[in-house]
Amino acid sequence: MAILKDFTIGFYKIPLPVVLSDSTHGEITAFELITIRARDADGAVGTGYTYTVGRNGGAVADILSREIGEVALEMEADDTEQLWHKVWWALHYGGRGGPAVLALSALDIALWDLKARRASLPLWRLLGGFDRRVPCYAGGIDLDLPLDGLLKQTDDNLGKGFRAIKMKVGRPSLAADVARVKAMRGHLGDEFPLMADANMKWTVEEAIRAARALLPFDLTWLEEPTIPDDVEGHARILRAGGVPIAAGENLRSLWEFKPYIAGGALSYAEPDVTNCGGVTSFMKIARLAEAFNIPVTSHGAHDITVHLLAACPNRSYLEAHGFGLDRYIEHPLVLEQGMAIAPDRHGHGVAFDWKGLDKLSAR
Amino acid sequence: MAILKDFTIGFYKIPLPVVLSDSTHGEITAFELITIRARDADGAVGTGYTYTVGRNGGAVADILSREIGEVALEMEADDTEQLWHKVWWALHYGGRGGPAVLALSALDIALWDLKARRASLPLWRLLGGFDRRVPCYAGGIDLDLPLDGLLKQTDDNLGKGFRAIKMKVGRPSLAADVARVKAMRGHLGDEFPLMADANMKWTVEEAIRAARALLPFDLTWLEEPTIPDDVEGHARILRAGGVPIAAGENLRSLWEFKPYIAGGALSYAEPDVTNCGGVTSFMKIARLAEAFNIPVTSHGAHDITVHLLAACPNRSYLEAHGFGLDRYIEHPLVLEQGMAIAPDRHGHGVAFDWKGLDKLSAR
Repeated sequence: MAILKDFTIGFYKIPLPVVLSDSTHGEITAFELITIRARDADGAVGTGYTYTVGRNGGAVADILSREIGEVALEMEADDTEQLWHKVWWALHYGGRGGPAVLALSALDIALWDLKARRASLPLWRLLGGFDRRVPCYAGGIDLDLPLDGLLKQTDDNLGKGFRAIKMKVGRPSLAADVARVKAMRGHLGDEFPLMADANMKWTVEEAIRAARALLPFDLTWLEEPTIPDDVEGHARILRAGGVPIAAGENLRSLWEFKPYIAGGALSYAEPDVTNCGGVTSFMKIARLAEAFNIPVTSHGAHDITVHLLAACPNRSYLEAHGFGLDRYIEHPLVLEQGMAIAPDRHGHGVAFDWKGLDKLSAR
Repeated sequence: MAILKDFTIGFYKIPLPVVLSDSTHGEITAFELITIRARDADGAVGTGYTYTVGRNGGAVADILSREIGEVALEMEADDTEQLWHKVWWALHYGGRGGPAVLALSALDIALWDLKARRASLPLWRLLGGFDRRVPCYAGGIDLDLPLDGLLKQTDDNLGKGFRAIKMKVGRPSLAADVARVKAMRGHLGDEFPLMADANMKWTVEEAIRAARALLPFDLTWLEEPTIPDDVEGHARILRAGGVPIAAGENLRSLWEFKPYIAGGALSYAEPDVTNCGGVTSFMKIARLAEAFNIPVTSHGAHDITVHLLAACPNRSYLEAHGFGLDRYIEHPLVLEQGMAIAPDRHGHGVAFDWKGLDKLSAR
């Protein structure tokens, strides 16, 4: 028994070491990190977090501080399904998406960390250990980098041990996108896994045109070609464009993934554990994808997600994200020959540098 | 030209005169009201609001205070499409649902109020005046009322001039629901418009069973039979149950309505202007429904919504809501022989009692 006794909430604005850019969010100079530490009656603590690319972090922190304690304290921490549904329904009218799901995700991650720590297991084993070595790619956020900068970033990533790389597309000119993908393919050589991410930039017809133009360069996938609200549009891009499609970082529940997975609208399901509803939702999405013979990849929060994909037989690549949270984490992700290694520390094993973070508090 | 210069945000907890109840939210003792007053460079002011049944109002107020000013101030107030999309995309990563859409809805209502005031028009005429007399029903929130209390509430509503009434269903026993609906039908007489609202209580098969059991009592519609995430489930309930289906108070965008309307999953579209994305979204949803020959009804905020339905040839009933906001509004909704009358005051014409509200501030 592990009755929840106390939540400690943090809200931080983390400046980025270099300005990042993509086709939708423009220049990103900082991200928001919102943390929750859940302590049970025995004094055991689980840690969860979520993040945004710059807005609504205040709302997430408000929900965690104002609402979630009232709903979840004094409940049994191990009853993660009960807690998830209680919070989902308590927040439903002003929730069911947006900051409410980010807050729930952070709570759920903390609960799973706590459960695994109490069980003296690494999270990936608690969830059903499949293979702690998970193929991993470097997710570049590099739309506005000049070509030489893109290639230099790529060499840096190769030097760090990555054996798969994703780049941004969605420049104003499709010809520029094609030239950059072609240059990357030439630089990396045939068969090196290369993905491209359009961050919802295109209409459906623009996306089909782009997919066809990029077909010669053997992309592993084309990501988020259009808005997440258009399931049939994704299906049409996949059928007509001929390039595998990944999507999901902007889908906020099992139910938002369902029409994509069951409707043939994506090739790779790409949930983000910090915004799809936490570990509880991520694993259901991964298992739904497995039922449909679809691989699951990931977005963001690689230190947590490596555990989840290490429990999935249908795991594809883990995304290693460029937000530089590593500066505030005790044991950054370990890469060996392109594979991320799920740690054997108990829980998810992510220990924040709270003193360093406190200097960046946004409360 | 009307450049936005200043937003004033309010956040209030309004105790209810009587405790309300439905099958999902349990007992509701207070609701949260979040207001925004948008002032332009000429000093003209538009007022918007949103509300929750008790949670996440703090997050909505945080988004309005912390994010929306940065995104929307100094823009042209009349460019409501531009503003809507700018805010939608600025909040998208931590948004696209939940408190972010409630905040956007409040802003958008304020902008349309401002636009209509500047044009010296009532909102319903600015939007395309069709008929200022809108059929209206009393939305009872009465699941836990004993039968005699339900009939007394009904007599009170008849006395107020209502000529259509909605009641709650979704009690633990279907037989109890059937008995209550049967009693209401007997009390009101044949052909009196009577609706029933299950607030997402049932599984699909339970809902079909309930619809069939309620079929003899000639319901105008059965509302929210199951969770808003299950489009195909609604379509199946509609086909197999034989009772018209209304849904939409928990759909948070034009895109969430689209599969319902285009997929034959509802008989009445029921957006709430305070949570579907504001006037801009509500009117698009109403026009989409018109294209599919589907009537549009409403949820909540009747003082605003009477204007929107008065501009829709496919308008069905306006819901008059039981939250008792009337106590803090200068000119409550006028009913004549069961019809709500859209006022001829400029804008939406809702003037809050700010002094009264200030005593209920939750900030």
